[in-house]
Amino acid sequence: MVSEQKKELVAALLAELPEGRVVAPDEQSALLTDWRGRYQGDAIAVVFPRTTAEVAAVVAWCRAHQVTITPQGGNTGLCGGATPLGGERPRLLLNLQRLDRIRSLDPLGGFLVAEAGVTVAALQAAAAEANRLFALSLASEGSATLGGVLSTNAGGVHVVRYGTMRAQVLGVEAVLADGSVVANLSGLRKDNTGYDWRDLLIGAEGTLGIITAAAVRLFPRPRWQQTVWVALADLDAAAALFVALHETFGDKLTAFELMGRTVFELVLRHIPDARAPWQAEGVPEWAALVELSDTAPASGLDALTESFWGETFANGWVRDAAVALSEQQRVRFWQLRESASEAQQREGVSIKHDIALPLAQIVPFIRAGEAHLPARFPGVRIACFGHFGDGNLHYNCFLPSGLDRADRAAAAAEVTRWIHDEVVRRGGSFSAEHGIGLLKVKEMARYKSDAELALMRRIKAALDPDGLFNPGKVLPEVG
Amino acid sequence: MVSEQKKELVAALLAELPEGRVVAPDEQSALLTDWRGRYQGDAIAVVFPRTTAEVAAVVAWCRAHQVTITPQGGNTGLCGGATPLGGERPRLLLNLQRLDRIRSLDPLGGFLVAEAGVTVAALQAAAAEANRLFALSLASEGSATLGGVLSTNAGGVHVVRYGTMRAQVLGVEAVLADGSVVANLSGLRKDNTGYDWRDLLIGAEGTLGIITAAAVRLFPRPRWQQTVWVALADLDAAAALFVALHETFGDKLTAFELMGRTVFELVLRHIPDARAPWQAEGVPEWAALVELSDTAPASGLDALTESFWGETFANGWVRDAAVALSEQQRVRFWQLRESASEAQQREGVSIKHDIALPLAQIVPFIRAGEAHLPARFPGVRIACFGHFGDGNLHYNCFLPSGLDRADRAAAAAEVTRWIHDEVVRRGGSFSAEHGIGLLKVKEMARYKSDAELALMRRIKAALDPDGLFNPGKVLPEVG
Repeated sequence: MVSEQKKELVAALLAELPEGRVVAPDEQSALLTDWRGRYQGDAIAVVFPRTTAEVAAVVAWCRAHQVTITPQGGNTGLCGGATPLGGERPRLLLNLQRLDRIRSLDPLGGFLVAEAGVTVAALQAAAAEANRLFALSLASEGSATLGGVLSTNAGGVHVVRYGTMRAQVLGVEAVLADGSVVANLSGLRKDNTGYDWRDLLIGAEGTLGIITAAAVRLFPRPRWQQTVWVALADLDAAAALFVALHETFGDKLTAFELMGRTVFELVLRHIPDARAPWQAEGVPEWAALVELSDTAPASGLDALTESFWGETFANGWVRDAAVALSEQQRVRFWQLRESASEAQQREGVSIKHDIALPLAQIVPFIRAGEAHLPARFPGVRIACFGHFGDGNLHYNCFLPSGLDRADRAAAAAEVTRWIHDEVVRRGGSFSAEHGIGLLKVKEMARYKSDAELALMRRIKAALDPDGLFNPGKVLPEVG
Repeated sequence: MVSEQKKELVAALLAELPEGRVVAPDEQSALLTDWRGRYQGDAIAVVFPRTTAEVAAVVAWCRAHQVTITPQGGNTGLCGGATPLGGERPRLLLNLQRLDRIRSLDPLGGFLVAEAGVTVAALQAAAAEANRLFALSLASEGSATLGGVLSTNAGGVHVVRYGTMRAQVLGVEAVLADGSVVANLSGLRKDNTGYDWRDLLIGAEGTLGIITAAAVRLFPRPRWQQTVWVALADLDAAAALFVALHETFGDKLTAFELMGRTVFELVLRHIPDARAPWQAEGVPEWAALVELSDTAPASGLDALTESFWGETFANGWVRDAAVALSEQQRVRFWQLRESASEAQQREGVSIKHDIALPLAQIVPFIRAGEAHLPARFPGVRIACFGHFGDGNLHYNCFLPSGLDRADRAAAAAEVTRWIHDEVVRRGGSFSAEHGIGLLKVKEMARYKSDAELALMRRIKAALDPDGLFNPGKVLPEVG
């Protein structure tokens, strides 16, 4: 598009909105690139609306001028879903960070209503102040926004107990492609009046509508917690321990995170002040971070956990177990886990996979990878960690050094192909919690059935007939 | 339609399916009428498919012949959603009761896969046998089927802890209008690969596709439970007690059912062997059935509950509290609650409302009804009971006797109008858990915004362009 046309469009948009909303892209260039630095987008302007009405005005304007819209929150997505890239029409980057009010908080009703730009950390803090829990917790929580975690249906470390974002939402407010606003923010637990468009918008990565606010659930705060770093005897012990914990403690099991040795050692190497939690020297092949929580301060649990852990030593599943003895130590324990991505980032480039498996398939899959990948690519390092309790592994591979650029690219493609084929064959998913964005559009074409893709395309055409919302994301082109 | 045409259609359908699937409507006339006897449907045939492939064949055949389809499970719906009535084309009643296999049960993965025709009671039994909990529980569980409770997003008595059916489903298999089958039954807890068509089909009452199977969650079984019938001091005490229970016991509160005196007295009058649970004479103005559950057999809870109930006596909220001392007594306690609908049925015709309110609005709404309705209609009896813990009341009215037919109809319309207006004005819903069916289509037109109705119509047109699935249900005609 010639720059004269662009200027005219931007001038027309400026006239549509209050001052300070429209910014030139070169003033906000960081927002045009995704967090991992994989995709470089471009846009005629970056718009920062401050109200839902302003979002609706932008959408109506875009429809009239056939300008496409990529919505963005904290720009912490891992699949390029918030980068303006795709389609051939001029693009707008719609950053929702200034839609940042918590509109209401009802501790008795157990929910708050917040706008799309409020960060996850701010939601956690607001809930805590009211003696409640906003249950989502993930490494990017300081920057990730409500709109972003809804649009990607984010998971995090407590899904085993509280579910993904979808399970934590009571209603949303959204701007549709025709500029209309739909909303259900009164915090009802039950409402069976027609089709569930709410869950259609959640996880759609901004391709079906723009979420501007949501009513999210608040849970009772745990008043008893035990956080334990467990050095496991082996991988089978991970599965056995998870099952035993679930049998014994039921929904008191609020986290069960697995971490392989490669990841643990990278954390100890790259993260300042990180220390292994166990007395004994060395890092085990497999470790688990276990958190048990109870909303009642029931003293019976201390005795129950003591005898439970004693048994796991006796039957040989557990080599060592470090229990956090203070809140400070609990935070340090979690930092070891939360630093896993950053430590890998510092180590260098890895091929990342965000996979989910049926519980019974986790161990067989990991064993299959251990057998196949190092044999096919000698020197490959597998960094495996993640949310064992809900079947979600982050399964990253560092390729051996010494490959040239073309060989690396070919090897990376083959590794990903093997992993995703293997996962889908076992009933798993090639995107557990990060979404599709730009990164996994090709996988959609490969692994989704024709019937399912056709259904998704019918939904897209119904909600966004002009293809204004986030073109190029989620759905592969027909053909 | 002339009967010759009908005969030809049925003959063609017979040729399409194995023997025994197609039955003449007069042989299954009970299935053509809804449970409450409000709607009389008719169909050219009743079809009982036994496999998903047979359902797909029926749908393809119906599309080719422009015959519409009303899916049906146990025919226990309260809004006429499963009665073949609506539209002008010939209709088929598709009863899914013989799609009745439990395909698999994975106690470790925490889910089972069952077909649409399996009853809720059968699911509960299968889960219990594997030492797990299928959490849905409702009065019609002996007949209601999985397909039915999914298509209405049923609630029941444990929503306060486990959510509605939507929250208990990991994936569904469904036949779409083009005869294709989409499925995700591998029991994944996390899967962010594209649009959430699953939740679109759930709660759609068979108007968007036909659910043929589902993967549903199993929970750890409670190993400690306390079930208490509480005689409350007054209505405010109900709200105060709920909040205190939630604060103290968090997610151990698995039921909080409210029952007004009118309902309790009808149960005692009409249900054989029903007895008030308290020592003292008489039934209180308001009573609550409270259930606390824990998945660990933590002995600390007995002491905690004892001191808790002691305090509620001391501060005047509770007049009397009867604790179930055996499993047998627990069952009897629940029967008092579960008989509420049957007792009202035996008393005579009432005007029924299935409403939800934000928690803070429940008491004000009940007070408003107590002030307005008896003043406007002297002699009206309000039968109010329901799932206080999730904001869902069944708010039924017995009109005074002595009105003639026309006056009754006018009064009933006015009562419903007043109640629904009042509920929606307070941020509530006119259908909390029973769905829309035929009964509440007019309410959709009155209370839903134009934007929301337009969105739902776009979804309907996208998934069912020929309008084959359950015409006349859920969505009002345009105009």
